[in-house]
Amino acid sequence: MIRNKSIDINCDLGEGFGRYSAAPEEKIMPLISSVNIACGFHAGDPQVMARTVQLAVQHSVAIGAHPGYPDLQGFGRRDMDLAEEEIESMLLYQIGALEGIVRAHGGKLAHVKPHGALYNRASIDGILARRIAETVKKFSAQLILIGLAGSLLVEAGQEVGLRTAAEGFPERAYEPDGNLRSRKKPDALVFEPDTAAAQALRLATKGVPKLANGTETSKGVQTLCVHGDSPNAVAILEAIQARLAENKITVRRL
Amino acid sequence: MIRNKSIDINCDLGEGFGRYSAAPEEKIMPLISSVNIACGFHAGDPQVMARTVQLAVQHSVAIGAHPGYPDLQGFGRRDMDLAEEEIESMLLYQIGALEGIVRAHGGKLAHVKPHGALYNRASIDGILARRIAETVKKFSAQLILIGLAGSLLVEAGQEVGLRTAAEGFPERAYEPDGNLRSRKKPDALVFEPDTAAAQALRLATKGVPKLANGTETSKGVQTLCVHGDSPNAVAILEAIQARLAENKITVRRL
Amino acid sequence: MIRNKSIDINCDLGEGFGRYSAAPEEKIMPLISSVNIACGFHAGDPQVMARTVQLAVQHSVAIGAHPGYPDLQGFGRRDMDLAEEEIESMLLYQIGALEGIVRAHGGKLAHVKPHGALYNRASIDGILARRIAETVKKFSAQLILIGLAGSLLVEAGQEVGLRTAAEGFPERAYEPDGNLRSRKKPDALVFEPDTAAAQALRLATKGVPKLANGTETSKGVQTLCVHGDSPNAVAILEAIQARLAENKITVRRL
Amino acid sequence: MIRNKSIDINCDLGEGFGRYSAAPEEKIMPLISSVNIACGFHAGDPQVMARTVQLAVQHSVAIGAHPGYPDLQGFGRRDMDLAEEEIESMLLYQIGALEGIVRAHGGKLAHVKPHGALYNRASIDGILARRIAETVKKFSAQLILIGLAGSLLVEAGQEVGLRTAAEGFPERAYEPDGNLRSRKKPDALVFEPDTAAAQALRLATKGVPKLANGTETSKGVQTLCVHGDSPNAVAILEAIQARLAENKITVRRL
Repeated sequence: MIRNKSIDINCDLGEGFGRYSAAPEEKIMPLISSVNIACGFHAGDPQVMARTVQLAVQHSVAIGAHPGYPDLQGFGRRDMDLAEEEIESMLLYQIGALEGIVRAHGGKLAHVKPHGALYNRASIDGILARRIAETVKKFSAQLILIGLAGSLLVEAGQEVGLRTAAEGFPERAYEPDGNLRSRKKPDALVFEPDTAAAQALRLATKGVPKLANGTETSKGVQTLCVHGDSPNAVAILEAIQARLAENKITVRRL
Repeated sequence: MIRNKSIDINCDLGEGFGRYSAAPEEKIMPLISSVNIACGFHAGDPQVMARTVQLAVQHSVAIGAHPGYPDLQGFGRRDMDLAEEEIESMLLYQIGALEGIVRAHGGKLAHVKPHGALYNRASIDGILARRIAETVKKFSAQLILIGLAGSLLVEAGQEVGLRTAAEGFPERAYEPDGNLRSRKKPDALVFEPDTAAAQALRLATKGVPKLANGTETSKGVQTLCVHGDSPNAVAILEAIQARLAENKITVRRL
Repeated sequence: MIRNKSIDINCDLGEGFGRYSAAPEEKIMPLISSVNIACGFHAGDPQVMARTVQLAVQHSVAIGAHPGYPDLQGFGRRDMDLAEEEIESMLLYQIGALEGIVRAHGGKLAHVKPHGALYNRASIDGILARRIAETVKKFSAQLILIGLAGSLLVEAGQEVGLRTAAEGFPERAYEPDGNLRSRKKPDALVFEPDTAAAQALRLATKGVPKLANGTETSKGVQTLCVHGDSPNAVAILEAIQARLAENKITVRRL
Repeated sequence: MIRNKSIDINCDLGEGFGRYSAAPEEKIMPLISSVNIACGFHAGDPQVMARTVQLAVQHSVAIGAHPGYPDLQGFGRRDMDLAEEEIESMLLYQIGALEGIVRAHGGKLAHVKPHGALYNRASIDGILARRIAETVKKFSAQLILIGLAGSLLVEAGQEVGLRTAAEGFPERAYEPDGNLRSRKKPDALVFEPDTAAAQALRLATKGVPKLANGTETSKGVQTLCVHGDSPNAVAILEAIQARLAENKITVRRL
């Protein structure tokens, strides 16, 4: 049985652009231990990135790059047919861009987590997963690669020798097979703080649910992803923090 | 009197985008000692950048970032009214993006040279020049800042403690006061290889011409900028290389 | 003395992009008589535009194009140095793009109002104002040109023979000389519904205030612009509608 | 047997962007009868579009819209997973944008031909083909829809009641089944003027080759597409024009 004594809570932030903002970042930052910052392709612009980085540095939150497809209109959620070389260059570009900003603001880049359609495809496409893992390693072997618990991306990260972290979603419904329920289906999203907190605890203690009958799985989860743009993100985060604390699980960066 | 025994030749490359290319990079790279690579805002995309970086690494050409305004349509030549913070973030982003690609391909970022309207404004606007210099230093105090010989940008770089390099243009006409003749005026551009070679030698040995009567100036030039997108860039570079060699001036990176 | 029996209320909408939205459009649309829809350059994408057009058609709101500089990051509020030909082509492009969507959804394009930095510059730059007016007329002589009351843009529209409408801002402070107070100054924006309603009535009945001492001016106002992205846009619109109704002024499209 | 007495020659132009140009448009325009102009998404910007439209008007070449995916970096050749509504809005936007420019320059929009990955997918995806055809009709029932000879796009156009034109490619190799050979395969492209001219004549007189054994097909071709960005586009066009003239086939717009 999996039983974490500590777990990371990560959140995708810096997903505004220009005048648009996507989340109440000042309120969320104190409630998380890691932040994945959009790098200007699916969201984020240099100024948005700089503000989010500064906030993360202030709150000692671990900073990661959150690269995505070059598709602001589709928010990186529309699949795109890119060549492997294009994937590599686009990742190096985005991770580097964020690192430049992080370094100048006194921070340190800690991890990488792909976004949206890229994340989803990398979960099930071994060739893409491998290329992403190799690219992250090329950038820096010190970076942690975050992927869906049980995904090929996490596996690829381990194969190339990166430190990895498997993530679970307190606010997303899981299918009996352990996959996330598609956002296009009803009930894919959990909006109720108590339900999310219960699922967070389950993920922290039992890992990803493999079977509908409650059979436990060995797919441990090292980080919980909470969506900053949920209507009640702050309430959900507070509920999760409280539930974990009650159960003596410390929230700690990877 | 200024008399360089060696001088750098730099060229702006990687200024294609997607299917578009702007210069015969394979032919130019062997003829220069430094390359300024566009970083995706006024030109360049991650794939174009990666190819240019690889070519530079192969030819042991010193690699620099060539950041510009976020204006692909205007090729960074249209002035934009950005806040100082926006300038800083946009520079960190672009320089970081290139560095990520450079590092992954086994190279090392050596210098920064702003592009187009940003370069021009930084030559005469002390506040902007200072912010650029400070930002480059924030990114890395090891980087060399390249600016127009005699400009406020070079001055600002020196003030903040960066190593700087003043550049001259063998293919651009100078006004008697030492400024570049505007591209909007006739005869602003020199297309004839011999003329460009003669001017290159003059810049290397006498620096920037201050007065029409030929009075020498103390504004030395450490690097010559040749335009990769000139119709006869290769011929011009060959003529310059030959003329410098005849005069025992070595072409060498900064 | 100016005394309108009816006045138009316009609002800039369709200023979201992709996943981002900028205003509660469903609530605002029933409270206005004209809508200016962003055309994809400073905000808006084809899908956002289509949704806003459909909403306007449902509510029989007059539809206008709201073209701006190609600068999503700066929301079209950063001045850009474009050539006159570029301005013309960019306007034809944006107005045409919107008209294509409007026509397909059973609507009809009624007016054009430039956005942000383009609007501001066109208020005081006679050459730009003239080019904009000529371009709108080239597109269609039936279109109404909306500009700041007392601006060169309204003047230029009249000179080229377009129907024009002068607009006033219930939510913006005016300087004694009749100009809008810069957004960079404190108190530039009015957020209180009652204050805005009072100013709306004043603009409708007395036009733009020319002098601090209350001297009336002959600069009539045919349309009132309310900002859809104000935190309390709906309350402000309701207050204005009520105040105008009490004073027997009908809200009616141009 | 198919035997055209006249045939249209179309070419994709206006595929530059900003400073980049993709074809010698002044030389090509006199040699074609129809032009498909990129609309700013996969290539083209308002200024490039305006110049190309003016050239087409001067040469009395029929003007069509050439809309593509919003992917300048991939030149619209990378498949994107867009919702049907997004396709519709994006088409209305692009066609409208071009029409605005065409009208202002005294021209008239005659046809629409999708570009790149959108064109390819519409050839074989009936639902997409239908949506494209319906959208074009919504924009204007007078427009001609151009698609690959034998494709579902041409079929869909006919079903919704649009006038259609089937196109053949003198410079592309065909598979025995009548499909174009993929650009990723060797010998997909024909660069030799005589070969292209021979194939042009064959397409004009016999339609698309259905079988490798030379069996004729009933898939007639009403327009020949020549690539403006081929290294020897002008020579190819001249050869085709000559070959058609020798065989008493007039080149004439649709």
